[in-house]
Amino acid sequence: MPYTARIDAAVRHAVKLAQSGPAPGKLAAAIEHAVLPGGARIRPQISLSVARACGDDKPGLADAAATAIELIHCGSLVHDDLPCFDDADIRRGKPSVHKAYGEHMAVLTGDTLIIMAFEALARQAQIDCQRAAGLTLELARSTGMPYGICAGQAWESEEEVDLSAYHQAKTGALFVAASRMGAIAAGADPEPWTELGARIGEAFQVADDLRDALYDEETLGKPVGQDEIHNRPNAVSAYGVQGAIRHLKDILGGAIASIPACEGEAELAEVVRRTAERLTPITTPQTA
Amino acid sequence: MPYTARIDAAVRHAVKLAQSGPAPGKLAAAIEHAVLPGGARIRPQISLSVARACGDDKPGLADAAATAIELIHCGSLVHDDLPCFDDADIRRGKPSVHKAYGEHMAVLTGDTLIIMAFEALARQAQIDCQRAAGLTLELARSTGMPYGICAGQAWESEEEVDLSAYHQAKTGALFVAASRMGAIAAGADPEPWTELGARIGEAFQVADDLRDALYDEETLGKPVGQDEIHNRPNAVSAYGVQGAIRHLKDILGGAIASIPACEGEAELAEVVRRTAERLTPITTPQTA
Repeated sequence: MPYTARIDAAVRHAVKLAQSGPAPGKLAAAIEHAVLPGGARIRPQISLSVARACGDDKPGLADAAATAIELIHCGSLVHDDLPCFDDADIRRGKPSVHKAYGEHMAVLTGDTLIIMAFEALARQAQIDCQRAAGLTLELARSTGMPYGICAGQAWESEEEVDLSAYHQAKTGALFVAASRMGAIAAGADPEPWTELGARIGEAFQVADDLRDALYDEETLGKPVGQDEIHNRPNAVSAYGVQGAIRHLKDILGGAIASIPACEGEAELAEVVRRTAERLTPITTPQTA
Repeated sequence: MPYTARIDAAVRHAVKLAQSGPAPGKLAAAIEHAVLPGGARIRPQISLSVARACGDDKPGLADAAATAIELIHCGSLVHDDLPCFDDADIRRGKPSVHKAYGEHMAVLTGDTLIIMAFEALARQAQIDCQRAAGLTLELARSTGMPYGICAGQAWESEEEVDLSAYHQAKTGALFVAASRMGAIAAGADPEPWTELGARIGEAFQVADDLRDALYDEETLGKPVGQDEIHNRPNAVSAYGVQGAIRHLKDILGGAIASIPACEGEAELAEVVRRTAERLTPITTPQTA
């Protein structure tokens, strides 16, 4: 994926700032544990890809957008793994933050990562105040209430679930934000970029469903069968494995078709195709 | 206190926005439970008092600053009360959020309140982008790492505690932010307003220590003896009750002395005096 080094540098920079000065050592370590070395970083990849497609005239803003998305995503994972949520002992192949540092520290870590995300954007206000504000509003709406990932998570506690709102909030919101924030960072209108994020978000959810149904815990790096355990809707239960894979390919085709006419559209389509390859699991599960 | 109605209206407005559209019902209710009817709201009172003292030329910005401070403070209380933190069953005289709605919902509520705080500020960018950015940076620094309340909380898990950093981060930071943000919202230089916030924060901590040592759970509205249980430093242990009360009065005298020369300084000094009266507990504890 093209922007791995750029994303890593930006995220590491944010972590270093949080660990500076009179930072208490355990929380400093827990933050790093939660964020580095990182997973696939698909969301910030989308942000930077869209920013590049739109000209990337202020790379610091695009980096901040990518960083903010990734930090807040990692924060949501730390809270998701808590005993009162998914109760997951492992994440990305290593102990979850609460297993390594305790629940108290894990709650603080998630909180801090949310704040760090907004701080990363605010630091760019001196470069371009309007764009930084646009990025902040976008991040807040895609993570908070009533449209963001917090709302999405909360739907799992309701007796009657608005399925569309649930999926859009829980997974779609942050992918849509990633795409729109890439555009905003580069000074472009985010509206035409909404569809791309929404489609990638849908594809990601189907791919996640497939992996959850097919892989073992060691390959996956996190517990399996979470959807079944937590009684959540799943594309494999709905369509079967082959049907879900076909559905995934359709969605990604739609994603590429949705890319607005722009200078970097060919490169972006290539990034989406590569994302698709990464997302599509091998149908014969490989162990270790 | 002079700004009660104004603060209440602003906070209620933010809550209504979070509860709008496709908001999942339980989280919507939990957010309201955490924020309304509210406690003393000392922090937003400070913000608005300082903004007024500086001219309050853009009241929407001052309201947003007050709202953001209060929302993030309430969010920190929700997480503080969790079983893995202080394990408190009651807060402000009613069940804590995790007792009323469960731990999962309480974690989400705290997260959402943090995001709502930053969103409230971002919504003001269209009124004054620079000031909104300044408010955002201030809020992030006073709540995150390494100088904010998350850092302050994290110090309690360290074997060796930097006491000064701990106190400044845990309590001082948000009072300093309240004062500075009031100035920033009104277009004034925040530097001269730092001392006022710091002093009020110190006073608040001493008053909290006194109440914790003197009152019963019913009067206090939250569990007593938390400092002793959690082995935290306490002004009453250090100075005795009368000594702590004298210390409190000294600090508040210093707070009033620190108020910069400005049009509203007399009114502000009066607000600080009234805050002092509210903070100073009666030395013969009253039950019910």
